[in-house]
Amino acid sequence: MEKYMNDLREKKVDGEAKYRGRIINVRLDEVELPSGNRSFREVVEHPGAVALLGETVDGELVLIRQFRYPTGETLIEIPAGKLENGESPEDCVRREMMEETGYKIGDLELLSGIYSTPGFCDEVIYIFRGYNLEYIKEPAGEDENGDEENLHTLLLTREEAMRMIKSGEIYDAKTVIALLWP
Amino acid sequence: MEKYMNDLREKKVDGEAKYRGRIINVRLDEVELPSGNRSFREVVEHPGAVALLGETVDGELVLIRQFRYPTGETLIEIPAGKLENGESPEDCVRREMMEETGYKIGDLELLSGIYSTPGFCDEVIYIFRGYNLEYIKEPAGEDENGDEENLHTLLLTREEAMRMIKSGEIYDAKTVIALLWP
Repeated sequence: MEKYMNDLREKKVDGEAKYRGRIINVRLDEVELPSGNRSFREVVEHPGAVALLGETVDGELVLIRQFRYPTGETLIEIPAGKLENGESPEDCVRREMMEETGYKIGDLELLSGIYSTPGFCDEVIYIFRGYNLEYIKEPAGEDENGDEENLHTLLLTREEAMRMIKSGEIYDAKTVIALLWP
Repeated sequence: MEKYMNDLREKKVDGEAKYRGRIINVRLDEVELPSGNRSFREVVEHPGAVALLGETVDGELVLIRQFRYPTGETLIEIPAGKLENGESPEDCVRREMMEETGYKIGDLELLSGIYSTPGFCDEVIYIFRGYNLEYIKEPAGEDENGDEENLHTLLLTREEAMRMIKSGEIYDAKTVIALLWP
């Protein structure tokens, strides 16, 4: 099996940083293909993220509406956030949930670490399920860096959320995965 | 509802192209937030993609193993590809399926258009289900641009695929969504 997997590997020959941003970096690598030929690979580097499908003590699911600038649309998503330097996914998801919704998570279960779009990006999203969420306080309206967060909490039953996937009202990848996870 | 959705909107004030690549472009936009304050948004522009969970006439699912350079790993995924200029998602998915696996799709059903990672990227993946797939010929080993495609077809039963999601062997977003879709 290992040999079978390895024969597809592409080896880095050279690389050039193309953009260094606040959230992402972009580099262009020259690679050697299994055939020995060479090609180029564009890579978006991302620090990784967490996301949570949380259920309140009353059995409702805590989602958010958030304007997503790259898409030009307001999407319905599960709360999520980027990993800060050195932070564990568990700590990150508890912090983000409090910042974005004001809910404290009781029990926490990691469902999977998922590549969002591995063809050009290394982002892994750790998707959790959280139970016994308790509403503690109004969300701060800003993140850990003092940036405004413009979002609204949306409480849904599981049936409503599943219907909104099938009707096309929920179409964010991590949210669909968390809701459909067995 | 419309008013409620619009109050989260961020308006573009200024923008700068940061990288123009072969698959992606990156721009940095200055935006006006709902509060009137200003901030910056990094946007990765992507042409969009298609992906297919296909079932053969014998009831097996057609997946692939593919080395994904940004991740450094060989992933198990459903066949997928980028939209070419002016191509419909349906035409694209039939072409990609033939190129990558040599299977001809019978009936085709669009499940959803999904944002892979809307926080920084506009990529939509149109996820299809395909039925009555027939093996026609050995895949060409290269894509429509003559670039080598290094991948192996993997036939799985639905039960095997579901087990591999839960065991963490399948962890690509579009693949998980297609397999779990109701």
